Amino acid sequence: MASTPLPLTRLIEHFASLPGIGKKSAQRLAFYLLSLPGEQVESFAEAMLTAKRTIHHCKICQNLTDQEICDICASPQRDGGTICVVESPKDVLAFERLNEYKGKYHVLHGLISPLDGIGPEQIKVKELLLRLQQTEVQEIIMATNPTIEGEATAMYLSKILKPLGIKVTRLAFGIPIGAELEYTDNVTLNKALENRIDM
Amino acid sequence: MASTPLPLTRLIEHFASLPGIGKKSAQRLAFYLLSLPGEQVESFAEAMLTAKRTIHHCKICQNLTDQEICDICASPQRDGGTICVVESPKDVLAFERLNEYKGKYHVLHGLISPLDGIGPEQIKVKELLLRLQQTEVQEIIMATNPTIEGEATAMYLSKILKPLGIKVTRLAFGIPIGAELEYTDNVTLNKALENRIDM
Repeated sequence: MASTPLPLTRLIEHFASLPGIGKKSAQRLAFYLLSLPGEQVESFAEAMLTAKRTIHHCKICQNLTDQEICDICASPQRDGGTICVVESPKDVLAFERLNEYKGKYHVLHGLISPLDGIGPEQIKVKELLLRLQQTEVQEIIMATNPTIEGEATAMYLSKILKPLGIKVTRLAFGIPIGAELEYTDNVTLNKALENRIDM
Repeated sequence: MASTPLPLTRLIEHFASLPGIGKKSAQRLAFYLLSLPGEQVESFAEAMLTAKRTIHHCKICQNLTDQEICDICASPQRDGGTICVVESPKDVLAFERLNEYKGKYHVLHGLISPLDGIGPEQIKVKELLLRLQQTEVQEIIMATNPTIEGEATAMYLSKILKPLGIKVTRLAFGIPIGAELEYTDNVTLNKALENRIDM
C-alpha cells in the first residue's frame, strides 16, 4: 500500500509473525509502539536482545535461566529426590504459582510425536537419564498434558524409568473442581470413573 | 517468582505493556521470541528502532511517513482539491484499501474531547488551516468516527471551515450493507431514517 512507509510495514510484519497476532493487531501494536517515547522503544528492543543473548537452558533441569544452573536446581531448600517432568518452561511456572511443590523439575522441551517426526532423541530425555545416573531420585512425577502426545511421552518414560527402580507417578486427571458432572465431557468423566479412589 | 530469570521477566513486562496483551499472552510471546533464531530476534529489535527513528508526520497531511512529504501528498495523481479529514493513520489505511478515493488526507492525531483536556490546539487543526491558506481546496470530507468526540470535532471544524467558502461534507451514517433492520440499534436506525434519500 502506497500509504504505509517501508520501516512501518517491516515492523508490522514482525509483530504479525508472533503467535496469535493477526494482521490487524500487528498494525495496532506497531502504531502504538511509534506513539511511545524513544527511550521506551529502545528499552523494549534492548530487552529482546538481552533476553535472547543471556537466556539458555539450565545445565541440569533444562529450564530457562540466565545462569549456568537455574535457581531451583541451585536451591538447597528444594528436594532433589523428586523430579517433576514437564513439557515446557510454562508448565514450571504453573507449578511454581502453587507455592506447594518442593521438588525439582525436568523440562523436556517437547513431547514425543512420531507423526511430527519427534522421537525421544529430539526432546531432553537423554539429559534426564544422565541426571538419574548422577543423583539419587526416589520419585518421578509425569506432568505432561493429558493429550495423545503427553500420554505417549509419559508411557515411554515410565517404561524406561521403572526398571531403574524409581517410583514413577502420573498427575491425576478427572473432573476439575467446581465443574458440573452434567457438562463434563465423556472422556474426562470416563477417566474420573476409572480412576475412582477409596474414601 | 524464583523460576523466571530477570531478563525474561523484563521482556514479558514489555510485551504486557502493549495494548490488548495480558500477562499470559505476554509470557507466551516472550517464550516464542526466545525460541526464534538469534538473527530473527535481532531483525525484530532493529525493525523497532528503525521504525521509531525514521517515521514521523508528513509536513503537509500529518500522516506517518519516512520522507519529508508522504507518498499521497507527493503524488500528482491525487486530487489536492479534496481533503478527507481523519482521526488517525489507521483511518487513512482503511480508505486506501478501498482503492476508490483519489483525493488527499489530513490526519488530526486525535479528536476534540474537553473531558480529557483535549482541545483544538492539541490536535492537528492549526496545520489544516495553514494548508488551506497555501492550496486551493474545494471540498473537505469529515471522516471522523460517529462517536461523541468524532461528531464534536466534525462540528467544530465545519464551523470554522464553512466561512472560508469551502464545501464541507460528512460521511453518511446509517444501516450497514448486509445488516438486518430487526437487529439494528435504535440510534443507527434513527439516523438512517433521518438521513433518508430520494430514489
